[in-house]
Amino acid sequence: MKRRLGPLPMIFPMPALLVGTYGEDGAANAMTAAWAAICCQSPPCAGVAIRSSRLTYANLLARRAFTLNVPRADAAAAVDYLGIVSGRDDPGKLARAGFEAARGAVVEAPILPGCPVNVECRLLERLDLGTHSWFVGEIVEVHVDEDCLDAGGKVDLGALDPLVFATSRRAYHRLGEALGPAIDLGKSLRRRTDGGPS
Amino acid sequence: MKRRLGPLPMIFPMPALLVGTYGEDGAANAMTAAWAAICCQSPPCAGVAIRSSRLTYANLLARRAFTLNVPRADAAAAVDYLGIVSGRDDPGKLARAGFEAARGAVVEAPILPGCPVNVECRLLERLDLGTHSWFVGEIVEVHVDEDCLDAGGKVDLGALDPLVFATSRRAYHRLGEALGPAIDLGKSLRRRTDGGPS
Repeated sequence: MKRRLGPLPMIFPMPALLVGTYGEDGAANAMTAAWAAICCQSPPCAGVAIRSSRLTYANLLARRAFTLNVPRADAAAAVDYLGIVSGRDDPGKLARAGFEAARGAVVEAPILPGCPVNVECRLLERLDLGTHSWFVGEIVEVHVDEDCLDAGGKVDLGALDPLVFATSRRAYHRLGEALGPAIDLGKSLRRRTDGGPS
Repeated sequence: MKRRLGPLPMIFPMPALLVGTYGEDGAANAMTAAWAAICCQSPPCAGVAIRSSRLTYANLLARRAFTLNVPRADAAAAVDYLGIVSGRDDPGKLARAGFEAARGAVVEAPILPGCPVNVECRLLERLDLGTHSWFVGEIVEVHVDEDCLDAGGKVDLGALDPLVFATSRRAYHRLGEALGPAIDLGKSLRRRTDGGPS
């Protein structure tokens, strides 16, 4: 049986990311954001939803740059802290959460080397939707911890152990077991008439 | 040590969703999409990246409506099939994958009741970014399986057992253990001077 819940923001699961920006004074800041996604393969783009009241909102517009940093599951408390406290109230929030900041290689936004994946974005588009604006950035560089890369240079999610977020109950999760490769698992369902190798 | 990978579409993890639309002939169709996110809380909005070559792209623009359906982890092979095969080549793909379609309650797009969460969206915006367009819809109704709701009406991700996608190695995963509640875990890091309950 289904229950109708009405209009609610629900997609499961979402990542739990840290959005890095520089303030007007050049100080590195980061806030937690779970509503984010890849938006395009080529040029590679990523989007993130930010409230206009956030310091990150102003920072991002001023330098037209941001980073998305993928934290490990064991950083859940630190990540949560960066979502609770604004850089306006605690300019030392990054250090308090145990993160250092480094300059991005391409854009004017800080990366957090303590996160195993750091994605540098140059602002392309902004959609003002209501409480949140959706910012789309072109991904111009990606930094990944060597120990999270397999022999083929692909990101090994087992080694990465990324934090995951579930809206509704607002809970952090760990990523679970691998179930198999995409563009492969489903081949067993192909029609016989499709025939032959594909 | 970090390695610079260059500009690549990387955010971890992403959901693995089924995008439901009606074709020109009124036939229900669904394709797999992992690049999707909540975009705004109020009005609730969701976005999804779709290639212009996809049947879903044309369908979505024609009726200006789509659904996002959250499948269970045990449907991984069926979900993958819906990402491999186009409704143009196999109009019976939904049935072959074991999914039935039902009419949306609000929009002109089919929901897949076999998925525990079904989100109805009315198209609001389209950003043409390159290989993909980013479609933003206003969420106008959400349907959830009763057995995935807790006593407070929140979605219990343990019961839902959603499928999760990891770009780069293109692997499906299960969601892992719960690590704790958001806007709570991080409170232990607050400055003492912040004091008092918040």
